[in-house]
Amino acid sequence: MVQPTEVRTSIPDYHMTPDEFRRYGYAAVDWIASYMQEVERYPVLAQVAPGEIRSRLPAQPPMEGEPFDAILADMERVILPGVTHWQSPNFFAFFPANASGPAILGDLLAAGLGVQGMIWATSPACTELETHVLDWMAQMLALPPAFHSSSTGGGVIQDSASSAALCALIAARERATGLASNARGCDGRLTAYTSTQAHSSIEKAVKIAGLGQENLRLIEVDEQYAMRVDQLAARIAADRAAGKIPCFVSATVGTTSSNGMDPLAEIGAVCRAEGVWLHVDAAMSGTAAICPEFRYLQRGLELADSYCFNPHKWMFTNFDCDCFYVADRRSLIQALSILPEYLRNQATESGAVIDYRDWQIPLGRRFRSLKLWFVIRHYGVEGLRAHVRRHVALAQEFLGWVIAHPDFEQAAPAPLNLVCFRHRGGDAVNQRLLERLNASGALYLSHTKLDGRYTLRMSIGQTHTEAHHVAAAWERIVATAQAVVAELEEVETP
Amino acid sequence: MVQPTEVRTSIPDYHMTPDEFRRYGYAAVDWIASYMQEVERYPVLAQVAPGEIRSRLPAQPPMEGEPFDAILADMERVILPGVTHWQSPNFFAFFPANASGPAILGDLLAAGLGVQGMIWATSPACTELETHVLDWMAQMLALPPAFHSSSTGGGVIQDSASSAALCALIAARERATGLASNARGCDGRLTAYTSTQAHSSIEKAVKIAGLGQENLRLIEVDEQYAMRVDQLAARIAADRAAGKIPCFVSATVGTTSSNGMDPLAEIGAVCRAEGVWLHVDAAMSGTAAICPEFRYLQRGLELADSYCFNPHKWMFTNFDCDCFYVADRRSLIQALSILPEYLRNQATESGAVIDYRDWQIPLGRRFRSLKLWFVIRHYGVEGLRAHVRRHVALAQEFLGWVIAHPDFEQAAPAPLNLVCFRHRGGDAVNQRLLERLNASGALYLSHTKLDGRYTLRMSIGQTHTEAHHVAAAWERIVATAQAVVAELEEVETP
Repeated sequence: MVQPTEVRTSIPDYHMTPDEFRRYGYAAVDWIASYMQEVERYPVLAQVAPGEIRSRLPAQPPMEGEPFDAILADMERVILPGVTHWQSPNFFAFFPANASGPAILGDLLAAGLGVQGMIWATSPACTELETHVLDWMAQMLALPPAFHSSSTGGGVIQDSASSAALCALIAARERATGLASNARGCDGRLTAYTSTQAHSSIEKAVKIAGLGQENLRLIEVDEQYAMRVDQLAARIAADRAAGKIPCFVSATVGTTSSNGMDPLAEIGAVCRAEGVWLHVDAAMSGTAAICPEFRYLQRGLELADSYCFNPHKWMFTNFDCDCFYVADRRSLIQALSILPEYLRNQATESGAVIDYRDWQIPLGRRFRSLKLWFVIRHYGVEGLRAHVRRHVALAQEFLGWVIAHPDFEQAAPAPLNLVCFRHRGGDAVNQRLLERLNASGALYLSHTKLDGRYTLRMSIGQTHTEAHHVAAAWERIVATAQAVVAELEEVETP
Repeated sequence: MVQPTEVRTSIPDYHMTPDEFRRYGYAAVDWIASYMQEVERYPVLAQVAPGEIRSRLPAQPPMEGEPFDAILADMERVILPGVTHWQSPNFFAFFPANASGPAILGDLLAAGLGVQGMIWATSPACTELETHVLDWMAQMLALPPAFHSSSTGGGVIQDSASSAALCALIAARERATGLASNARGCDGRLTAYTSTQAHSSIEKAVKIAGLGQENLRLIEVDEQYAMRVDQLAARIAADRAAGKIPCFVSATVGTTSSNGMDPLAEIGAVCRAEGVWLHVDAAMSGTAAICPEFRYLQRGLELADSYCFNPHKWMFTNFDCDCFYVADRRSLIQALSILPEYLRNQATESGAVIDYRDWQIPLGRRFRSLKLWFVIRHYGVEGLRAHVRRHVALAQEFLGWVIAHPDFEQAAPAPLNLVCFRHRGGDAVNQRLLERLNASGALYLSHTKLDGRYTLRMSIGQTHTEAHHVAAAWERIVATAQAVVAELEEVETP
């Protein structure tokens, strides 16, 4: 076996000293500050070919350590050409994933502390700040009383709305079966429901949790891309009649495709009547509820069993930060609880503390509430509201331009900051238009299909997007569309 | 609906400017450097009562933003008293969760870039650096060829070994059922196997994935706390005879309780013969394989279908960073793949790129490979080896003291850096000894039970632990034990 040797005292230390950390830390901060200043100079969508970044990296890891300056220099040489700039004010694709100064620095301090908050005892501040800040958020969004930790429920930070949906589904599954699925496994009878417009994470969760994709009912939507409640009720009734066990409905506040808004009050009434768990996925649009004038979009939320929204999208809090709430925390904890001997401790056994390991899939957890706390305190509620209102106003202005232009049309309602639109020239024009726009590097948009038609999505929510960025984007869209139409006409008339 | 107004130009910006970010960033870096210098001054285990940290926080969120200096000052006033200091060299509890300068700064740069690596196109560098660095790690640990991305498999960063185990289990489930579980759900016939000493995350994964806890067989261990392969083979055979479908075995390289080492070659032979997926959880001890002399612990790994280890434990890479490898990536991707229209893109459809969203539970992902790249380059392979050897040597020296002392005994084999030991005075002495040691604030140890007996765990692996910390810990353990024994004798002889 290994012998204790003098190796302990004779080797170099290798670690960065606190003074070195100060020096290199300043350099890293400077690098980010410069990046913030220069981000608009880069093509928004990375223009590299597959394998190009890897080809710049040595095939073998270094045997000896390298100076920090050399490592930092490779950020420019190796990494930046392969970055798609989510922090560019010209990023209009998908939904935003916003960083901000206070979030970055809150996360930095969390990394410096390096605590593991799996149970209360392994850092009480990590657990208690999280509970507290999520109660703040519940006030800020005017969430129903049951979602506050002082009531029967409470909030927890998850990595993403995907994981939140999976946790909600597991809790629903166990509530419906009296913990029998946890004990004996699924038996193919449980069914789940969401709309055809819901995020793919619902389908993924249904597969992971052992329900099976065939037991997920994709409910039709109306012309506003909102779930049809009559169809939901009919499908639940049909399943019950066929011996199935309906256990979970996921409704969406702001679908990914088109920002469709499911009618929560009506869906909630069906769920209550049927005893089915209602989860509400407000990943993107939940942030809007910080502003009282947008809270109507979440009307009926008091009927939900769980809810999530992502400050890492539209609330200037670095990924990952999904706020997940349950109305009855016992349902969640019973479904996910484990307690091996090596984690037993007095605080847990007293029942006086929260152990967040029982509110999530993994055991370990970072101190993510720090960045959220920093963001709320830096901006203040009014500062956050101002930005939401600004982004919504910019999107509504853009929508006005779409409607006023004879060659373009609005493709879906735009209640907030996502505008779905298309050129009237058909799918080929729109697809080529998107490719051309993104290849220009000047901006980045993404697409979807609505009623089978290729549709462009203009998502306005990046931290630094200003009116002139949106105006420049629209000018480029119009000019590029004219060029694309001309090209396609040339091909057709030789 | 909302009107475009002059609000856009008249409101204050609220955002931190690049210059402000520089100033506050330096302050945050200084704060961490000071924390590094002073960490030994704090009690290792936080000494606060439940609710104490929350009581220092205002009940309502601030309506107006606050100055950064005020926020930073609360790190000292509010947060630090509630921190259990995982980065203290006197932290000997659980397993380590090490931070280091290069990891913190790599993570800081990732936060500054703020990219979302869910698919290749949303930042090619995020995907390609990850694939590349995980190939480096495969070389560093001498993993079997199939785990390299140039072969049939490859690696991906997960948040934790819990999530890695769940992904492995889902892939195994779908391989065993020809994707029928994903389609129609579980049917109660699938069975899984691990030892009585395995991590609780295996049980949690079996519940989440819809197999049911009753279908998880906890196989007995031998006197070394290693899985008994004869019992495994017998149990699989019995299940098959009873119409069950054995699909998943999880073996452990370094159990959490006692660092027990399951015999991979023998377990692998059974799995191959039975067509059962073998997952190997080397969360803590995998790091040791950086040193050639410890690779014998992973002998037989070429028979595994998946493998994981956590650089966020013993390799100076901030949580979260679990490296998860599969030998056949198709099995994993088929089980977890989703492709909604709004994520379709040319690169994905070309088949020339990896989209890591199909290798994990959530959709979104951070640029976690940056911190791992920084760590490997800063320390170099030789630097990392030196620290592993130093920690193992320190643990072996500690073990020598335990063995030599008449009042103490070794409780389990200690092949690496975890020493399980106990006072010969019985459970009451050991439990009170642990409480007294942790309440002193001078160090933090945790416990387990082995063969029903209360056992102390001395886990040596914190980044900055030196010989004198271990020596001081032993002196305190011996002195405190004498005091505890005297107290208990006094109670018994009034």
